[in-house]
Amino acid sequence: MKYSKLFGKTVKDAPHDADSPNARLLTQAGFINQLMAGVYTYMPMGLRVLNKVKDIVRDEMDALGASEVFMPALTPKEAWEKTNRWDKIDVLFKLEGHGGKEYALGSTHEEIVTPLVKQYATSYKDFPVSVYQIQDKFRNEPRAKSGLLRGREFSMKDLYSFHLDEQDFLDFYEKSKGAYLNVFKRCGLNAKIVEASGGDFTEKNSHEFQVPTENGEDMVFYCDCGFAQNKEIASVKEGDTCPGCSKGIIKSEKAIEVGNIFPLEDRFSKDLNFKVQGADGEMVNVIMGCYGIGPSRVMGSIVEVHHDDKGMLWPKSVAPFHVYLASLSSKDEDLQSRIDEVATSLHDDLEAAGVEVLWDERDTRPGEKFADADLIGLPLRLVVSEKTLAENSIEWKERHEDDARLVSLDDIVEQAEQWLEAPERLTSH
Amino acid sequence: MKYSKLFGKTVKDAPHDADSPNARLLTQAGFINQLMAGVYTYMPMGLRVLNKVKDIVRDEMDALGASEVFMPALTPKEAWEKTNRWDKIDVLFKLEGHGGKEYALGSTHEEIVTPLVKQYATSYKDFPVSVYQIQDKFRNEPRAKSGLLRGREFSMKDLYSFHLDEQDFLDFYEKSKGAYLNVFKRCGLNAKIVEASGGDFTEKNSHEFQVPTENGEDMVFYCDCGFAQNKEIASVKEGDTCPGCSKGIIKSEKAIEVGNIFPLEDRFSKDLNFKVQGADGEMVNVIMGCYGIGPSRVMGSIVEVHHDDKGMLWPKSVAPFHVYLASLSSKDEDLQSRIDEVATSLHDDLEAAGVEVLWDERDTRPGEKFADADLIGLPLRLVVSEKTLAENSIEWKERHEDDARLVSLDDIVEQAEQWLEAPERLTSH
Repeated sequence: MKYSKLFGKTVKDAPHDADSPNARLLTQAGFINQLMAGVYTYMPMGLRVLNKVKDIVRDEMDALGASEVFMPALTPKEAWEKTNRWDKIDVLFKLEGHGGKEYALGSTHEEIVTPLVKQYATSYKDFPVSVYQIQDKFRNEPRAKSGLLRGREFSMKDLYSFHLDEQDFLDFYEKSKGAYLNVFKRCGLNAKIVEASGGDFTEKNSHEFQVPTENGEDMVFYCDCGFAQNKEIASVKEGDTCPGCSKGIIKSEKAIEVGNIFPLEDRFSKDLNFKVQGADGEMVNVIMGCYGIGPSRVMGSIVEVHHDDKGMLWPKSVAPFHVYLASLSSKDEDLQSRIDEVATSLHDDLEAAGVEVLWDERDTRPGEKFADADLIGLPLRLVVSEKTLAENSIEWKERHEDDARLVSLDDIVEQAEQWLEAPERLTSH
Repeated sequence: MKYSKLFGKTVKDAPHDADSPNARLLTQAGFINQLMAGVYTYMPMGLRVLNKVKDIVRDEMDALGASEVFMPALTPKEAWEKTNRWDKIDVLFKLEGHGGKEYALGSTHEEIVTPLVKQYATSYKDFPVSVYQIQDKFRNEPRAKSGLLRGREFSMKDLYSFHLDEQDFLDFYEKSKGAYLNVFKRCGLNAKIVEASGGDFTEKNSHEFQVPTENGEDMVFYCDCGFAQNKEIASVKEGDTCPGCSKGIIKSEKAIEVGNIFPLEDRFSKDLNFKVQGADGEMVNVIMGCYGIGPSRVMGSIVEVHHDDKGMLWPKSVAPFHVYLASLSSKDEDLQSRIDEVATSLHDDLEAAGVEVLWDERDTRPGEKFADADLIGLPLRLVVSEKTLAENSIEWKERHEDDARLVSLDDIVEQAEQWLEAPERLTSH
């Protein structure tokens, strides 16, 4: 795609109230645009990233065997009254329609998905059931902050599973951890599984997926053996001997929560009367789990973890485009047309090979192009100029490396294809 | 995909309040599930259809040169006050958040997109600009009805274009008509372009895209020459000589509106102070157009137009799967394993060839499978049974044809591939 056709240019000044790297960099690079506190428009490049994150999430949920559905954001008051959460969830946005009918905007969907699954899963043969959706959620946050990390409208993948016995639930719960770690790894995030509070759902722990970063709002105590607890429930402190392995020493770090999974036990099936006759003829309350990942929060977290003072560094898997192709202007008319010709065919050949290219063909100074390339942070920058063509080459520079090198025109497409297929080198910690 | 793994089974009874074929059939077939009046969950098969419709819309919008963005549903009161629409739009859902902050749920997005584009299109060189989104919209409808046709939460593609002169706008407006007709044709709908009121935006007409159907809530007067007017503004009546061609006779028909396009002139750019210095140095108010298609409404309209007393008939382009593969049970164990084996490899071979298969492998009566196949309405039904295997064949029946025929096992995959590539035969009127 040509840069000049792209809606959403880079902007010089950081927004006044950008309180975090993700808010500042995503806005400056033209990926998102703030409508009001905690509420953003996704510009074309931001939407491309968000959709790639969603596709990775979808892929891993499908691999878990879950079915994708799409539930409404507009939900009836009656559904929340049955579980006593109409007044209890303080971030619920409430509204009134014709005839005094009251609604809430979904901040979570247990109240909707449980009666839904109850209609279709009527025999023990229908279990287990797992359904998920990827949808915008709404929360009346007292203080929206940190760009995409804590918003009032945000993208959420919520998965719900339904089981007739505890062991079946536990098996699925364990499997879901693997799926979650895959999601984060594929997004360039190295997440830890951390024990956290089960809230008022369960006396068991829930589990959070935490990515270490200095701007994280959570604090995690952990050992290299895999033991990890959120500060809120931690039974250990820094320097303690790890209760998990009895050998390691507990360390602490700040982190961002990018996902969480909850055992719900029969908290909702009881209130919503979801019972099924088991194979042995006994009626049992359905056991549930819920599992959340916020794709927009993941997008913000990637920027928190992968940026430097020049801009963002996108992993190949979720970069809006793979390659930033800059063609530099020449004052020589013949050379200029040669540059255009090479850049055009390189753009077309790369795209045909599945390598997505943002082609900066503007007639602006090289310094401006390079600054935009660094800010936008596509993983590979290719430059075509008088200088590179004198060597029958293209300049190749990866965003996370300092040095550039020349690659011959004959080899460039093949090398770019191989680079795209190669394992990701940009992962946190 | 195996039918037994599908979340959302067919249900025998029509919902009590299903007031239209789309509400009744989509619910019975397990494509949608009503949460409350005018608000539906999309079950896996319904979501597949909806996503295919959205992809067709997206494809045609991209071909128009428009950029995809994603704006929030949560919008600030201040935006609507600037255009005096906070109190004027009676279907606006309003809500209040922390600190008394007031919001509306977007029922349309002129108030959001205009200030957005104003930030990035600052020079005449940036024009024309066209951006679109595909998003759930909310309307506080006094009477939700007709399933997916008039809901309180529904999917919408809204496109907005911005121009510096009238001719440039008109060119884009004409081009958009072609893109819209392509969308509907690809969805199996034969839409007419119909003149309608410009509302309070413009003294000019707007244009609606109307699909003839007996359950339509609109009435259209038209001539075969292409002249067509919505009854609301019609200057003609049935039997009149057509004022367009001066020859044809005006006829009338009921129709469903599946899309509309509006010249907005400077209605919003004036209120929102979106002026740009033209090439000649003069400041001009930006001229706008808006262009809507509701993917969920299109989905409902397809059912309204393409159904019979047994169920739905999906065009290949938007069918949740292309093929309903029914394997019939045998009491002979050897024959049963041969049936399973043939069905398995047929399923796998078809999927590998890009033909999407819903494989009904349940151990139920043939009559139940055939009734479900007709209700769900996939365009091609294939049957593997003792009888067909005795002839080394598969039974082939297209949903819109009465007769079945046998196709040899050796030819079946190739024939299905060719059938999928062949032009759609299922179009309205």
